[in-house]
Amino acid sequence: MAKELEFLTKRSEDYSKWYNELVVKADLAEQSDVRGCMVIKPYGYAIWEKMQRILDDMFKETGVQNAYFPLLIPKNFLSREAEHVEGFAKECAVVTHYRLKTNETHDGVVVDPAAKLEEELIIRPTSETIIWNTFKNWIHSYRDLPLLINQWCNVMRWEMRTRLFLRTSEFLWQEGHTAHATREEAETRAQQMLKVYADFAENYMAVPVVQGVKSETERFAGALDTYTIEAMMQDGKALQSGTSHFLGQNFGKAFDVQFLNKENKPEFAWATSWGVSTRLMGALIMTHSDDNGLVLPPALAPTQVVIIPIGKPNQMPELDQKANEIVKNLKALSVSVKYDNSDNKRPGFKFADYELKGVPVRLVLGARDLEQGIIEVMRRDTLEKENVNIEGIEQYVHNLLDDIQKNIFKKAKDYRDAHIYECENYEEFKERIKDGGFFLCPWDGTSETEAQIKEETQATIRCVPFGIEQKPGIDMVSGKPSKARVLIARAY
Amino acid sequence: MAKELEFLTKRSEDYSKWYNELVVKADLAEQSDVRGCMVIKPYGYAIWEKMQRILDDMFKETGVQNAYFPLLIPKNFLSREAEHVEGFAKECAVVTHYRLKTNETHDGVVVDPAAKLEEELIIRPTSETIIWNTFKNWIHSYRDLPLLINQWCNVMRWEMRTRLFLRTSEFLWQEGHTAHATREEAETRAQQMLKVYADFAENYMAVPVVQGVKSETERFAGALDTYTIEAMMQDGKALQSGTSHFLGQNFGKAFDVQFLNKENKPEFAWATSWGVSTRLMGALIMTHSDDNGLVLPPALAPTQVVIIPIGKPNQMPELDQKANEIVKNLKALSVSVKYDNSDNKRPGFKFADYELKGVPVRLVLGARDLEQGIIEVMRRDTLEKENVNIEGIEQYVHNLLDDIQKNIFKKAKDYRDAHIYECENYEEFKERIKDGGFFLCPWDGTSETEAQIKEETQATIRCVPFGIEQKPGIDMVSGKPSKARVLIARAY
Repeated sequence: MAKELEFLTKRSEDYSKWYNELVVKADLAEQSDVRGCMVIKPYGYAIWEKMQRILDDMFKETGVQNAYFPLLIPKNFLSREAEHVEGFAKECAVVTHYRLKTNETHDGVVVDPAAKLEEELIIRPTSETIIWNTFKNWIHSYRDLPLLINQWCNVMRWEMRTRLFLRTSEFLWQEGHTAHATREEAETRAQQMLKVYADFAENYMAVPVVQGVKSETERFAGALDTYTIEAMMQDGKALQSGTSHFLGQNFGKAFDVQFLNKENKPEFAWATSWGVSTRLMGALIMTHSDDNGLVLPPALAPTQVVIIPIGKPNQMPELDQKANEIVKNLKALSVSVKYDNSDNKRPGFKFADYELKGVPVRLVLGARDLEQGIIEVMRRDTLEKENVNIEGIEQYVHNLLDDIQKNIFKKAKDYRDAHIYECENYEEFKERIKDGGFFLCPWDGTSETEAQIKEETQATIRCVPFGIEQKPGIDMVSGKPSKARVLIARAY
Repeated sequence: MAKELEFLTKRSEDYSKWYNELVVKADLAEQSDVRGCMVIKPYGYAIWEKMQRILDDMFKETGVQNAYFPLLIPKNFLSREAEHVEGFAKECAVVTHYRLKTNETHDGVVVDPAAKLEEELIIRPTSETIIWNTFKNWIHSYRDLPLLINQWCNVMRWEMRTRLFLRTSEFLWQEGHTAHATREEAETRAQQMLKVYADFAENYMAVPVVQGVKSETERFAGALDTYTIEAMMQDGKALQSGTSHFLGQNFGKAFDVQFLNKENKPEFAWATSWGVSTRLMGALIMTHSDDNGLVLPPALAPTQVVIIPIGKPNQMPELDQKANEIVKNLKALSVSVKYDNSDNKRPGFKFADYELKGVPVRLVLGARDLEQGIIEVMRRDTLEKENVNIEGIEQYVHNLLDDIQKNIFKKAKDYRDAHIYECENYEEFKERIKDGGFFLCPWDGTSETEAQIKEETQATIRCVPFGIEQKPGIDMVSGKPSKARVLIARAY
């Protein structure tokens, strides 16, 4: 699409503005005319599709099957689980009528008051209720378990302040819902799916994550435990990137889902649910990108390599021929590549545009270089350029993509690790949290302390992290004994 | 899931009942507790996923890109295009509020009257309006065209009488929306996508279709031309299986989408839209299945081959070993295969269940047969059994799947062709239409005649079919001159 390239606001000037501009200018998404709802543009959607395909394969590898449940949920379903209704029934889109009619002046339509629903329907904010209402008919015996279901769909939560990908009223996600015969099996599944998310985040998105368990206050409404992966953005803030919930028998009881166990006795089924959403796009963008635009991990880049020719019109046939040969060879190596020999844009414009779009590798094929058997290679992550022998360039690029994937993960991890601090002094914490970062602090385990920290610093307990040494200590706020250290940060 | 197999109602007894039972018993879908909305069960969804993947690849092959647009549409958008509002604004789900609150007795939630939307939002029945409202920002110059967009999503039309897959209030579909610089290009695209649908229906679903153009009455609301593929079900009724619309400049004008042409003059963009939905599942089921259950084309069967062992417990290790070898070899040929050696179901139960599910090929591996180097092969389409050398069974099965794919298409086509009649006498038509079938009849081109036929016979003009010889004649109803013959049938 014809447009002039404009420079982005620098991250150091205004990180938030940089992000908002980048999402729009890189053609990822834009605000729609429907309040809080976004349009995901083709380039952004292509990245989301790659995420979906990989995650879907990972879920199926663990035995999960996809299905589809209704968009609309009867209002009374939400009230069945006491905590769930508190968390989700409040800000949601309510369908009250099922018909419009022509208005009196015959120039528009109005709601037909005769078409009022007996019971209002809610656009799903999450689907535990409708799915467990269905599971009731699917689960009768222990032989029907485990039941491992996932759905890819849209959901809606009426958000007052929205930001593209990070917080929108409508978003796309997957929600897994499983039912089990035992508590242990359900807990194991909830943890297993967290591992799948962490694996995906680190090995495909190249986003390092802290895995852990949420405090009671931060749990999913209706869960006994919420597991989370937390990523650090370049401004030191946390982005909750995926959650997996152990729901106990709460939904089994609320929707009367009982099965006969091996001893032929009825028991309520045990539940998990787990989800990641288009919010991952926000994590991806904010973790790697720079002042020139997007930086995409090769594993998720819709186009991994772009080839741009530079030559006079009479040199183009030769350049086209060579480029097409390289394209063919790269495709044979499963590399996605685009040859851009369009003549209505200057090379400089193309360079900036593909940088903005985060294409991991750029090859510039110059007429003079071709004579000398070399080609210019630029890697997007470091912006380094070098001249490489054109002979064997395909394998070189293939290896370079691997290298970029590893390098951007390392860069993000180094940054993250350098901004995790141990802190046992609340005054120090209050001062340092202003600059961002993850703080490991002893916590007395009370929601009062948690609330005080949030109130005074806008920081929240992100999780009790796994894999760190835990030991008794003194809560930095209350001075009471602490059994474990928690990860505290300001968050998106 | 544990359940007893029950026999289906026979098609000859009650075709409609047979369909409804089959969809539920084969675990494809079921009614939800939300009026008119279905649950697509894992087995049904697995078939839909295969359809999606193939169609998506076919769309992309023609240059189409996926994107995502909001679920909710401001009410006034629907009124912008005069015919569109007539067709779609009437029966739709209307969001009027964005919050619930706890009720006075504290045992439920009620709509918060303070959270009334200024303008109501409609759950999309189709997305022309919101998409063209977005295209306005994407299209400025002829260089931005063509714009070829598709989205996979859910839509909602408030249906009073619903049937699983065939007519549900919420359904899943894809909707393609393209914008073009010229009328010719848009018309060509609309026809091109019809060809894609016909190709998919015939070569993957094995469902023969008649391609044609709709009468003015049957056009999509807002279209200048609607192209259609019409399939014949086993009761002789038509099922409209996909439509592609040439929309002219109607939406370009309604949403002020103008571009500067090569002469730098503003013009309104030309539009198409095209869609297929989960209705295709209905076409698939009703075209091929029989009184024993589903018959699936191998190209869309989630499991193409099932292997069932029969032997005494002490013979099982040997059978398992041989079966696993066959599984491995079949997978190497890209055949999806399941080995069912579960010991909690009798072989007879398994046979009936996989027949019900429409698995194209069943292999029965008996202990005695194995000694003799043979295996029993049953093909689902004809239910024929034969003993085949176990040596080379994989290639045999691979070829058999191809054969089944071709055979069920031929069977459906032979049936369809045997039930297309030429008819020029209205009395004869009125009598014969009761038994179903497609009737090629001369039509005077007036909506009055069309309405009379519908009123008196419940049959509708499905299309002016392509690829048949057209010649002047006499309308069978009015006696007026007819320029072309049309296809008339009762339809789902």
